[in-house]
Amino acid sequence: MVTTDTRRLDINCDMGESFGVYKLGADEEMLDLITSANIACGFHAGDPMIMDRTTRTAVAKGVRVGAHPGYPDLLGFGRRAFGASPDEVERYVLYQIGALHAIAKANGTELQHVSPHGSLGNLCAADITTARAVANAVARFSKSLILCAIAGSCTSQAGRELDLRVAELALLDRNYNDDGTLVPRSKPNAIIHDPEVVASRAVDVARDGHVKSLGGKPIKMTAHTITLHGDNAEAVQNAVLVVSALKNAGVRLAPMSEIV
Amino acid sequence: MVTTDTRRLDINCDMGESFGVYKLGADEEMLDLITSANIACGFHAGDPMIMDRTTRTAVAKGVRVGAHPGYPDLLGFGRRAFGASPDEVERYVLYQIGALHAIAKANGTELQHVSPHGSLGNLCAADITTARAVANAVARFSKSLILCAIAGSCTSQAGRELDLRVAELALLDRNYNDDGTLVPRSKPNAIIHDPEVVASRAVDVARDGHVKSLGGKPIKMTAHTITLHGDNAEAVQNAVLVVSALKNAGVRLAPMSEIV
Amino acid sequence: MVTTDTRRLDINCDMGESFGVYKLGADEEMLDLITSANIACGFHAGDPMIMDRTTRTAVAKGVRVGAHPGYPDLLGFGRRAFGASPDEVERYVLYQIGALHAIAKANGTELQHVSPHGSLGNLCAADITTARAVANAVARFSKSLILCAIAGSCTSQAGRELDLRVAELALLDRNYNDDGTLVPRSKPNAIIHDPEVVASRAVDVARDGHVKSLGGKPIKMTAHTITLHGDNAEAVQNAVLVVSALKNAGVRLAPMSEIV
Amino acid sequence: MVTTDTRRLDINCDMGESFGVYKLGADEEMLDLITSANIACGFHAGDPMIMDRTTRTAVAKGVRVGAHPGYPDLLGFGRRAFGASPDEVERYVLYQIGALHAIAKANGTELQHVSPHGSLGNLCAADITTARAVANAVARFSKSLILCAIAGSCTSQAGRELDLRVAELALLDRNYNDDGTLVPRSKPNAIIHDPEVVASRAVDVARDGHVKSLGGKPIKMTAHTITLHGDNAEAVQNAVLVVSALKNAGVRLAPMSEIV
Repeated sequence: MVTTDTRRLDINCDMGESFGVYKLGADEEMLDLITSANIACGFHAGDPMIMDRTTRTAVAKGVRVGAHPGYPDLLGFGRRAFGASPDEVERYVLYQIGALHAIAKANGTELQHVSPHGSLGNLCAADITTARAVANAVARFSKSLILCAIAGSCTSQAGRELDLRVAELALLDRNYNDDGTLVPRSKPNAIIHDPEVVASRAVDVARDGHVKSLGGKPIKMTAHTITLHGDNAEAVQNAVLVVSALKNAGVRLAPMSEIV
Repeated sequence: MVTTDTRRLDINCDMGESFGVYKLGADEEMLDLITSANIACGFHAGDPMIMDRTTRTAVAKGVRVGAHPGYPDLLGFGRRAFGASPDEVERYVLYQIGALHAIAKANGTELQHVSPHGSLGNLCAADITTARAVANAVARFSKSLILCAIAGSCTSQAGRELDLRVAELALLDRNYNDDGTLVPRSKPNAIIHDPEVVASRAVDVARDGHVKSLGGKPIKMTAHTITLHGDNAEAVQNAVLVVSALKNAGVRLAPMSEIV
Repeated sequence: MVTTDTRRLDINCDMGESFGVYKLGADEEMLDLITSANIACGFHAGDPMIMDRTTRTAVAKGVRVGAHPGYPDLLGFGRRAFGASPDEVERYVLYQIGALHAIAKANGTELQHVSPHGSLGNLCAADITTARAVANAVARFSKSLILCAIAGSCTSQAGRELDLRVAELALLDRNYNDDGTLVPRSKPNAIIHDPEVVASRAVDVARDGHVKSLGGKPIKMTAHTITLHGDNAEAVQNAVLVVSALKNAGVRLAPMSEIV
Repeated sequence: MVTTDTRRLDINCDMGESFGVYKLGADEEMLDLITSANIACGFHAGDPMIMDRTTRTAVAKGVRVGAHPGYPDLLGFGRRAFGASPDEVERYVLYQIGALHAIAKANGTELQHVSPHGSLGNLCAADITTARAVANAVARFSKSLILCAIAGSCTSQAGRELDLRVAELALLDRNYNDDGTLVPRSKPNAIIHDPEVVASRAVDVARDGHVKSLGGKPIKMTAHTITLHGDNAEAVQNAVLVVSALKNAGVRLAPMSEIV
């Protein structure tokens, strides 16, 4: 039996990742598809003008906004390892949350969530010390902010330790082994490229609470939110497919604050 | 007759203007003297670690904190002309206010005021369009924030237009003509270097609501706050002198939120 | 009578203006059309990886490279006023020339020229002090570097004062009055949008040493080089038109070092 | 028997590590003591104005200059791990060498050497891939540039692979075991704090080609150059002691280009 909750799903997307004259991402189109926007905060990408414009558009389209903090490495787009200490990570995240909070407040809305970006996000998922630094920043700012985390990651654990609301993410474009572990990226079938398959897995997760392993076994998977990408025209098309599949399957799309 | 209000005075100082390993300003010493701290927000100076440390120390010493936003020109310390549009200025200031707000919140306090830095501050004082951009940023964030402004400046006007609380600054180290205008910097006696004289003028403003012109005429001057500097050992000594003179004259030092 | 020299023309284009993951400009396509590449040096745009890739491609396609230095304002793409002193401008330009020189040397070529970018270029054209700062930087690095300058500008004057080789630029997309002055941008016919007309004017300048004024009068105009743009697909198409028109008219395209 | 060469020694110091209004290091005083200056190039510290001033002073005092390239992390002063790829490291170093080369050329001198900074230097010493990236940058710029390297490090190996001149550094403030390995930093006697002892070891290395192990055994050690520090007043005093000791022992101080 499926509870109502598993039939609701949030869709998030990273955005506001342009900088000055540089454009990145189909933010306008994606804001028509998603329920939660992860907005870059000026460290790995984004700037105050773009943060304001992205937030204003999100508000106009009824999409909730959250902070997407990263390392202060614009040149590397926050995707490179960066030896900041946990104390530094905590303050960097706090700073970025505050900056976007001000933009959100000025646009008549409130921050819903925090989703760490790139190599900061990856490190949080794997390293409990970094995860606690990020969770601390969130908790010091506001206990009502939701922390986005890959299900079962250190990020999730750190958030729960501080009694934060945690929105768990499923990795829909990754294959799993029968024992529930991820197929490593070194294997040829690690990544699922077919958007139809991704869409169908999104439905499986949202409706049934599981995805199929490579061996065909159902793997239990809670997901409050899934991440879609708007990096290029093909990505946007795929996102449209996933959203249609979810709607056709009767999954109700809702911002994560209504789910967790 | 002197009202109670004119016998109270706030003392502010720019601080948190270090960056990474680079140290600037005698913040610790100055926090023992002042009532309001203008904390740099990472654009012209400051970084998340320094903002946190400065705010924490200010809170521990009972000093109120405010944002000291500047242009994004660390290399020029925000002292150079910078061709940002009014829309850009508004978002830059909003961003910086938010960043410091988060740090303040995490340290159990609230922002009291906003005091624009360097060439941004100078342009605000002289140009109503830029002043309105800054005042808009403040008002969009919170109507309870105080805007610091040189008495009679465009900054002051822009703040009042938006019904913001405005804390007026007196320029104690500048001489005035009999008609109340400033002696231009091109004139040899434009600047007052003797700290004893500056201290005595601080007392005049706080107690009597006026300073003497070069011709010996009393010039009416409201000042809710005066700015002291902690750039070097001599500046700190001078600040000590000014604060002593004020206390000896019975002027009560109080954060600007208790005055305006 | 037309000398051989007036039948030769350099075509330059700004490039290497991407940054990190951010892409800008159709550099590959433009490098098939032009003879001199103005490569951004990491201040207003560009980074060491992009400088290296752009230089390597230019060398492979037989295009000469030059420095395109700008203000240290990536956020504003070097297009905003920036209050650097002449001493600062000189060192900023020297630094950028050196950085690109190293990249060029590593790719087996030498810098041919320097073309200041955006608001730095505009200020140089109008302000002899800034122009001299840039010319000084060029001369201190190497007297064999060519300085690009709008014909008749302060940049041109400053270059000649220091006995630098100066490559003069014609503004092909601007209309002129009968007296040879530019039609101000405030007038509706200031800018020429039709690429066919621009191409025909390029031919006039290269072949005949003049363009026609709005009143139909020939205006004498020396041009060693013209600037084309590769900002978008339409700009590239227009550039193709101009280059075809020049070749059809028997104008020989050659790097500016063979002309001035 | 001691050859003439072992009686000559270069003394190097990191400098030009100020930034904008921020001051760091007693550069003026140290330039009276040393023979080779490692000048920061604007990535981890330094800016074009400071590079120019430092180079000019070095030239005036007869000190040779070299590049001190670091990671693009001003906030962390280039001391943090930074996940740049080898290709990126190569271009970052090339860029910085070029920038300082231009400043040197404008001041009538040539670069003598390259000494990688902070965590980049540490990684080079331990990781041959990164070391080769740095050595490649040096070799692509000029085979006559000297690469500074801790004796026996990967940096040294990478330099020799490319037939670069390598100046080997001795770690004078570290103790060695009888087998010639460094006493690990985790041990209490790893670091030598007494400047007299450091000075005496500098003399041992320069004059005799060895230092004494903790057990009193002579450890063979070639050193073309030793590093002194000017971070604070105490460091400068210690540097004066070391230089006096070397001179009193008849060691001739000379720039590394006269030694390797």
